[in-house]
Amino acid sequence: MDKSENNFNRLLLEISFDGRNYGGWQIQPNSPTVQELIQETLTKLYSGQDIKLTGSSRTDAGVHAVGFAASFAVPARPHIPPDKLKKALNGLLPDSVAIRGVKEVPMDFHARFDTAGKAYTYVINLGDETPFASHYSWRPYLKLDIEKMREAAQHLIGTHDFSSFVVNRDDIDNAVRTIYNIDFQVFGQYLCITFTGNGFLYRMIRCLVGALEAVGTGKISGPELKTILEQKDRRKAPNTAPPYGLFLMKVFYDKEDITKFKLENVPFL
Amino acid sequence: MDKSENNFNRLLLEISFDGRNYGGWQIQPNSPTVQELIQETLTKLYSGQDIKLTGSSRTDAGVHAVGFAASFAVPARPHIPPDKLKKALNGLLPDSVAIRGVKEVPMDFHARFDTAGKAYTYVINLGDETPFASHYSWRPYLKLDIEKMREAAQHLIGTHDFSSFVVNRDDIDNAVRTIYNIDFQVFGQYLCITFTGNGFLYRMIRCLVGALEAVGTGKISGPELKTILEQKDRRKAPNTAPPYGLFLMKVFYDKEDITKFKLENVPFL
Repeated sequence: MDKSENNFNRLLLEISFDGRNYGGWQIQPNSPTVQELIQETLTKLYSGQDIKLTGSSRTDAGVHAVGFAASFAVPARPHIPPDKLKKALNGLLPDSVAIRGVKEVPMDFHARFDTAGKAYTYVINLGDETPFASHYSWRPYLKLDIEKMREAAQHLIGTHDFSSFVVNRDDIDNAVRTIYNIDFQVFGQYLCITFTGNGFLYRMIRCLVGALEAVGTGKISGPELKTILEQKDRRKAPNTAPPYGLFLMKVFYDKEDITKFKLENVPFL
Repeated sequence: MDKSENNFNRLLLEISFDGRNYGGWQIQPNSPTVQELIQETLTKLYSGQDIKLTGSSRTDAGVHAVGFAASFAVPARPHIPPDKLKKALNGLLPDSVAIRGVKEVPMDFHARFDTAGKAYTYVINLGDETPFASHYSWRPYLKLDIEKMREAAQHLIGTHDFSSFVVNRDDIDNAVRTIYNIDFQVFGQYLCITFTGNGFLYRMIRCLVGALEAVGTGKISGPELKTILEQKDRRKAPNTAPPYGLFLMKVFYDKEDITKFKLENVPFL
């Protein structure tokens, strides 16, 4: 009986954070990170016992999250029910981090290896400068042809070697990933480009958005984007889009949930 | 001929700012202010000539603006056309301040004395904590009955002595103001309460929102709110709402524009 109870003493947190003040998720020297902050808060709540969070991925400095996922093995004592833990964490964490959900998962659950896919949204400000969204959107200098971007994005959907759209290609074994969908939506003055896929390489979305922006401004054509993808050479691709327009929206652990994902509004609400 | 040209050498700026980093609009010691920042930037653009901005009102520390108004007398040289000035200011100002419009006004125009009215929106977060809007909305602890708040707000519309809803009553001659409308709109998880009126006293909106919140949580009733208004005594009123949920939306110089004002979405987009 003890054993079956132990099957559920791992908790999965759904975490939202404003990336502007952090050097990303993962603990590193010389910069505050979200992992460090939440681990320290959990350690306080569990009476000083060391808590180690396993995140679903790394995120770059400045990138935001609506639904980052991280799990930890819960100490036997003190017992804190999930809803109480959520409230306690939100009470102790700064405004720039919010816990949106706390869920029991099996002990053998792994926040990184068990992911079925992810959704990311990149926000582009098509209108005037605004002080409220300047940290949550990229405002390119030139006017964008969204229809051309939408058409060109079709070349990226599917299973491809994305070597042309990754930073530090030499550090990874395999640059083949599957993009299920790239959705373009306009809410007010914001263009939101939502990518769903089985996984994304380091800075891949920012590289892809940089390339799509080059299509939108007419710097490259849709067929040229296709050629760049086929060349599998990062040096051929346009610039990388800045981190502050990017939001990790959702980490999926069930493949069925991926196609159901739909952005309802700009992610910074 | 020179004289008729001189009739238009005053410019009116429409200014949007994130109030979190500022001690309000008006220059004061020991705290950066929006007025100081824009004046210094204008002085740079006008080759070191001192520029003095006249604002439409003061704003409290932490309060935001979508459409603050301020005017200044333009030096004869160098000549900078309005659209160029807007771009130059936005290029030099930090992300937390944006110039939305630059318009020529007659030399005898006064940004404060000529106002016909103002619109303010107060944002209340009805849902979960979110790191992106924590500086742009107030999240009261208790659940709110919006229908009760809407009904009670009807008592405030019209011409009244608002002495019960003002800080530093002794500093002002006359607390009679006219509220034209109080509009309740819900966008996603945000309740936006928009006040239009011929003018508002120091902290009046925050006092009114504090009272409406007390109605929403059941602490006081609608008729009690009416009694508090009639008592003309600040000590009778509930607490003041925090500054970070408040946005000055628009300063009207034409009375006809006031009734046309309609909020389209949350103000922090």
